[in-house]
Amino acid sequence: MHQTAILGVGQTPVREHWDLSIRDLAVNAARAAMEDADVTRVDAIYVGNMTSGELSQQRQLGALVADYLGQWGVEAVKMEAACGSAASAMRMGLLAIASGEMDAVLVVGVEKLTESLGAKTTAALATAADADYEVVQGVSFVGLNALVMQRYMYEYGYTRYDFAPFALNAHANGAKNPNALFRAPISQKTFDRGRIVADPISLFDASPIGDGAAALLLVPAEKAPAAVRVIGSASAIDTLAIHDREDPLWLKAAEQSAQRAYQQAGVGPEEIDFFELHDAFSIMAALSLEACGFAEPGQGVRMGLNGDILPTGRLPIATMGGLKARGHPVGATGLYQLAEATLQLRGDAGEAQIEDVKVAMTQNIGGSGATVVTHILEKSE
Amino acid sequence: MHQTAILGVGQTPVREHWDLSIRDLAVNAARAAMEDADVTRVDAIYVGNMTSGELSQQRQLGALVADYLGQWGVEAVKMEAACGSAASAMRMGLLAIASGEMDAVLVVGVEKLTESLGAKTTAALATAADADYEVVQGVSFVGLNALVMQRYMYEYGYTRYDFAPFALNAHANGAKNPNALFRAPISQKTFDRGRIVADPISLFDASPIGDGAAALLLVPAEKAPAAVRVIGSASAIDTLAIHDREDPLWLKAAEQSAQRAYQQAGVGPEEIDFFELHDAFSIMAALSLEACGFAEPGQGVRMGLNGDILPTGRLPIATMGGLKARGHPVGATGLYQLAEATLQLRGDAGEAQIEDVKVAMTQNIGGSGATVVTHILEKSE
Repeated sequence: MHQTAILGVGQTPVREHWDLSIRDLAVNAARAAMEDADVTRVDAIYVGNMTSGELSQQRQLGALVADYLGQWGVEAVKMEAACGSAASAMRMGLLAIASGEMDAVLVVGVEKLTESLGAKTTAALATAADADYEVVQGVSFVGLNALVMQRYMYEYGYTRYDFAPFALNAHANGAKNPNALFRAPISQKTFDRGRIVADPISLFDASPIGDGAAALLLVPAEKAPAAVRVIGSASAIDTLAIHDREDPLWLKAAEQSAQRAYQQAGVGPEEIDFFELHDAFSIMAALSLEACGFAEPGQGVRMGLNGDILPTGRLPIATMGGLKARGHPVGATGLYQLAEATLQLRGDAGEAQIEDVKVAMTQNIGGSGATVVTHILEKSE
Repeated sequence: MHQTAILGVGQTPVREHWDLSIRDLAVNAARAAMEDADVTRVDAIYVGNMTSGELSQQRQLGALVADYLGQWGVEAVKMEAACGSAASAMRMGLLAIASGEMDAVLVVGVEKLTESLGAKTTAALATAADADYEVVQGVSFVGLNALVMQRYMYEYGYTRYDFAPFALNAHANGAKNPNALFRAPISQKTFDRGRIVADPISLFDASPIGDGAAALLLVPAEKAPAAVRVIGSASAIDTLAIHDREDPLWLKAAEQSAQRAYQQAGVGPEEIDFFELHDAFSIMAALSLEACGFAEPGQGVRMGLNGDILPTGRLPIATMGGLKARGHPVGATGLYQLAEATLQLRGDAGEAQIEDVKVAMTQNIGGSGATVVTHILEKSE
């Protein structure tokens, strides 16, 4: 089985891109990745996206992106796993390289969310949850996460203010990333005054939607000995609906995919130098830290309060702003995480660079923990 | 690289399934495939679907299907390439087996189209074409195919009546398939009187939409020496918009994917015993026959007129009814084709069984030839 190296990285800034269509966004990021890798022809293109059929009236994004890259004749297809779409496209890229059938694979995540009316976008995003048993109750996606956060606070005795470090860290880091949507640090006072979106989730616990695309150019590791390598990769699903889980506070799929990735990589949580986690809501950041073995149950929030998650801490997270400050173009997010982790390992993270990093983990989540995709990357020797 | 065997086949009848949700359809077909294979646990589930986000307000079908099959913890994701979604899911299944990472993979195609209002479904299906440069002109998907058929008749001197054999053959074969939507043979007179949908395409040139699901259980070939084997598999893309092609009458991606599949399989068109092609419209059947090397340009229609495509002919097509009579639940169709080809090779095609078949080809097309996925299957020795 071939190991895979990440030879090229491309991304667009996360913005409200009124002047760019979904094809422009995807092609811009993909071209940047190909140029970064100095590759002009690929064997396959896997595109992660959630909502283009509904919000841009455009399906068949694989063919669309390949067509506008001039890559006629290649294999191209779209993957969808709600907010976990982009890392799912990465998975397919890795399987394609591992199969021995492909020598250069482009994986692209793209999403354009801000063109539609807010209500339409909210409805499209709600399709990540269970239509028949969750959404039918009238609960929105943020509403579902609010219920989980409420329960967490009740079980472990926290207040909503204890979640502030996740937002403060993300905004401080995003300020150093030119591709981030929000580039201003926020204070504890700003957090405390945050307008409640769905009690107890405030504006500063919720990641903003945005338009954007990120892409990676993958090759067999033996062809690029100096490039960042993928040493662990696994995807796992849990029940789609939260109420079907034994414990609504335990992301079992996150645990399973992380454990598999650790095993493949031959490392444990203690070897991970930083973690690009799926902080769509601050409660999800806390639950991910716990499910992946970085904190005991109920102690994820404590890692924030202790400063462990800062760039100088034990386990930096959201080093380029995370979903919270870089922005969350849902079907692109998983590849933004992987792109940012790659840049950090290459030492190309600019102002956001963290020191002495060799092993990175990323985790992309679809729905409220239903699809979880974990990757572990390693700097070349 | 591991070769793959098809150990289990499952399908639901194609119908207007008012009493079944998209999850029911997918799970019913998937369960049938697992039972057929006598397998209770899989490593991954890849789901092909086009429209569920818009028409069933449900995305993240990978997790949905895995959840309701009780396959928590597995990898699961959805693939979309318009009408080529299901064969694209098959491609991912094959890559996963070839990678050596997976030992049992379930591939499922599912679509539920008849629950929505017709206009909404037509709009959802139009997202297979180029939103910005085709659909914006007001042309529907059948309208695009009508333009191609018009051009074909003009170039090669046919009338619309010359396309009748495709419909007659499909309906005669569908009558023998209990899972087909239409189970009555039609006469030339019926065809001739067919109401025009988009000139020159009549009701009998156009495949009907429907609800349905089909599934295959895949394993490494060495683990199932008696099962049907996949000996060729390739996907290729062309321009998304027809007007961007050098020749609107040449399905270049069909040619490329077929040639690659022939090469992998070590066979040519003359070794193919029957061909489950993508007869979404009769013009597409003719163009596929030509692009895959079964007929010279302009001679695809002639194969119909000569009787070559009949169950007793040189190259039987649509042996279980094809898209035309079995029905075309778009994101499921590619796996119906593969399921039917497998049943034929196993000798399990019932009344529709054709004699002495060893090598089968299937071709699933997304959009008007934008994504084309070809598979070649072989009977075990």
